[in-house]
Amino acid sequence: MSNSNTLYITNSLTKTKELFTPITPGYVGLYVCGPTVSGESHLGHARPYITYDVVNRYLQHLGYKVRYVRNITDAGHFEEEGREAEDKMAKKSALEKLEPMELATKYSRRFHWGMKLFNCLEPTIEPTATGHIVEQIEMIKDIMAKGFAYEKNGSVYFNVKKYAENYAYGELSGRGLDNLLENTRNLDGQSEKEDAVDFALWKAAPPEHIQRWASPWGEGFPGWHIECSAMACKYLGAEFDIHAGGMDLLFPHHESEIAQSTVVNGKAPVRYWMHNNMITIDGKKMGKSYNNVITLTDLFAGTHPILQQAYHPMVVRFYILQTHYRSTLDFGNEALQASEKGLRKLIGANELLKKLTFTENISTKNAELDAKVQKLVSEFAEFMNDDFSTAKVLANMFELATIINSLKDGIIKADELSSTTFSLLQTQFPIYFENILGLQSMEDNADNSKLDGVLQLLIAIRAEAKIKKDFATSDKVRNELLAVGIQLKDEKDGKVSYSFD
Amino acid sequence: MSNSNTLYITNSLTKTKELFTPITPGYVGLYVCGPTVSGESHLGHARPYITYDVVNRYLQHLGYKVRYVRNITDAGHFEEEGREAEDKMAKKSALEKLEPMELATKYSRRFHWGMKLFNCLEPTIEPTATGHIVEQIEMIKDIMAKGFAYEKNGSVYFNVKKYAENYAYGELSGRGLDNLLENTRNLDGQSEKEDAVDFALWKAAPPEHIQRWASPWGEGFPGWHIECSAMACKYLGAEFDIHAGGMDLLFPHHESEIAQSTVVNGKAPVRYWMHNNMITIDGKKMGKSYNNVITLTDLFAGTHPILQQAYHPMVVRFYILQTHYRSTLDFGNEALQASEKGLRKLIGANELLKKLTFTENISTKNAELDAKVQKLVSEFAEFMNDDFSTAKVLANMFELATIINSLKDGIIKADELSSTTFSLLQTQFPIYFENILGLQSMEDNADNSKLDGVLQLLIAIRAEAKIKKDFATSDKVRNELLAVGIQLKDEKDGKVSYSFD
Repeated sequence: MSNSNTLYITNSLTKTKELFTPITPGYVGLYVCGPTVSGESHLGHARPYITYDVVNRYLQHLGYKVRYVRNITDAGHFEEEGREAEDKMAKKSALEKLEPMELATKYSRRFHWGMKLFNCLEPTIEPTATGHIVEQIEMIKDIMAKGFAYEKNGSVYFNVKKYAENYAYGELSGRGLDNLLENTRNLDGQSEKEDAVDFALWKAAPPEHIQRWASPWGEGFPGWHIECSAMACKYLGAEFDIHAGGMDLLFPHHESEIAQSTVVNGKAPVRYWMHNNMITIDGKKMGKSYNNVITLTDLFAGTHPILQQAYHPMVVRFYILQTHYRSTLDFGNEALQASEKGLRKLIGANELLKKLTFTENISTKNAELDAKVQKLVSEFAEFMNDDFSTAKVLANMFELATIINSLKDGIIKADELSSTTFSLLQTQFPIYFENILGLQSMEDNADNSKLDGVLQLLIAIRAEAKIKKDFATSDKVRNELLAVGIQLKDEKDGKVSYSFD
Repeated sequence: MSNSNTLYITNSLTKTKELFTPITPGYVGLYVCGPTVSGESHLGHARPYITYDVVNRYLQHLGYKVRYVRNITDAGHFEEEGREAEDKMAKKSALEKLEPMELATKYSRRFHWGMKLFNCLEPTIEPTATGHIVEQIEMIKDIMAKGFAYEKNGSVYFNVKKYAENYAYGELSGRGLDNLLENTRNLDGQSEKEDAVDFALWKAAPPEHIQRWASPWGEGFPGWHIECSAMACKYLGAEFDIHAGGMDLLFPHHESEIAQSTVVNGKAPVRYWMHNNMITIDGKKMGKSYNNVITLTDLFAGTHPILQQAYHPMVVRFYILQTHYRSTLDFGNEALQASEKGLRKLIGANELLKKLTFTENISTKNAELDAKVQKLVSEFAEFMNDDFSTAKVLANMFELATIINSLKDGIIKADELSSTTFSLLQTQFPIYFENILGLQSMEDNADNSKLDGVLQLLIAIRAEAKIKKDFATSDKVRNELLAVGIQLKDEKDGKVSYSFD
């Protein structure tokens, strides 16, 4: 279906793998639903942002100029804080009152900290819901002017039935109006909505609600769905290329986004909808009732009861990319520990590969091996073009790692490959491993060059001591290094490598 | 004037040093005018943010809960981008158009990068101008309703004359209305303002202006002064404790803030106004015409023609704190190089002090030295309470560093001090040096513990080699370490220390 020059994406809207064609040649508009920053980021945030980071990286690799917009939800979802703060409203001083923006700032920073550890590239624009109240109000006014929303007691609701009469409703989620009506009961007098299937565009703020803005309908705050419609439209235009998010957002969030934007702009907002599947934990859905919501802090420190150990952010990233983003992914200690091993193998192969040099030696060419390496490397692009099949790329990398390690061990000479194949391998492996999959060493590189220099000196001193049969010194070097968490390993070729605990 | 229990601040409003009394006991509201993120941060940004970082740190040290608000100006000042982008307006696709928010995002991140290197604590809330358009519009409506502003062709102006008739105008800057009128000419027909002294609250957006929001007066964007009034009031209340910024902002920015907020809230917004003086470069004002605007990137990399070398962010921080914030500060290579030396001395003393231990030895007490150390340490608080006199604190630290180094060199024994004095020194020096002045080591600490472990091993091996008269090995250690930028130094007490290039 795919070939090395064309990218295919599974479009959730059509449920088929489609050839990707951008609206404006050379440019891609990418919108990803960002986190709600009323609490700490957790494992559930890891999958979409790592997945779409790879999408962003690969699009850039293909030469596109990507405008990557990922929002921060710092309004609307904050009602809980409002409630929690109720008793604080009696306080006289502004400084004593809970300020939701203080929480939003704190948790936005924690989120960015996590994203940085995951080696996710920063989005081009990271708009906040509170930063786009005017745009949301204007959009709501427009929807009302076109007759698809109504005001009730200072709140504004989207008229889903009327929308369904005029446009195709439910295309993305497969939940048409009939389905909705069947599954939603209208309880007389229990709601100010005209119909239970309607959703809020603007909510009147009760007195205890702190986050509130002036609007044509009185003081209130925006509904959740309208923020993404307003921000995506502002920064990417009325129609843009890719909108991505977790499958849990497909309905009602994304379905509602389509309805809102379609009314305002007269056309569907998004060409390609991408949805990643969910993470389960030991087979269970993540949720407060299971006590299995693992924050990123817990994950990296190993401090949640479910965790047997701390997991390095790179291990989590690697683990996530080992499964196709549209498949479910079960999180468990064993799987993570296996990932750690696997990642170390690939990191080692990638580093080793960079140090290998090619010497022309026509007589010993190994045609079979050459062809195999050629194929494994050229499939990187093929797999990525096939709906970002990172798992398949990693599988090929494992095969290549074995070959690279054998080159190192002297079983196969580097020059058994043709210079073209060797150079292809040496350039493409790191490009896909580091730049596209975004994987990197698990050591802190800060002072690695100094540390490496000092260690090489110690390794040389130890080698000399061995030659002089001064085993006291050579043992001392090995043991004292162990004490600071550095392990020396004598390799087959007589060289000595080191690794950290 | 000050004593060790009370903080005095030079209030620009009264031009006197006043005892600081917070509005709400135990809480401080601190507002600092933040950067305009239409370009890269430069040396001029370093002084206010480092100065008020120390203010924030010291207030917290005194036990206050500080809500520190520092805004990001990402609107209003962006007209230039609007102009630059004029020719891009013809492009059809949203993605091809310049998006000011893309620039704002990029330069906000660069700014944060610089602040982090300067070891400035993050503000509690960092609101953006674009994120508070509704609040600004509401404030402007209020000012108009009270009769202190008028609309003309979609723009809204503040009526300064009318304000001066009703309130004391010019108290902060000393520029009263008479002074203003003398220095401002009304040119008939050249302005839509009723009077040249008026200032804009809202500006109608010309067609080529990209940043624009719906308002009761048509599409436009806020004036510069209104953003700080709106955000300070939202997060700190109608009246708050401290508003700080550079002296260049005193007029018209801060004077206008006072006028706006006073009309809306019926009282002056700020109790204590703090203003830091400017940085000159080799005696000249910083400015494009002198080609002496040094960006933080240039500063840290040494890449501006004025710079003889790269300067570590800690050196710049130290240099700034060596002068009182209300004095002018001239930036030059010699001064910076001297600061680097001085900082290294204090870092060394601080580290050494932590390692010293106290042994009781009553017979050798040195009463004079004991009293001197007592005095030097207790003055830390006295000086900080005297309008944040960081320069004086550092001067005392230099005296103490000499004493600490002499303790180390064995000239004076640690136990010549009383245990109380020694413990006072050992606890207070690091608290003021690290926590309050925010100074820290210039090395990257990332893998320092491993590196230190390995280096101690090498130092031991070298010592053994010397004992065995194996000078080949001992020289090898020294020389190979030099090659990776690590210098060994034989200390008087027989110990070996190391330092990095």
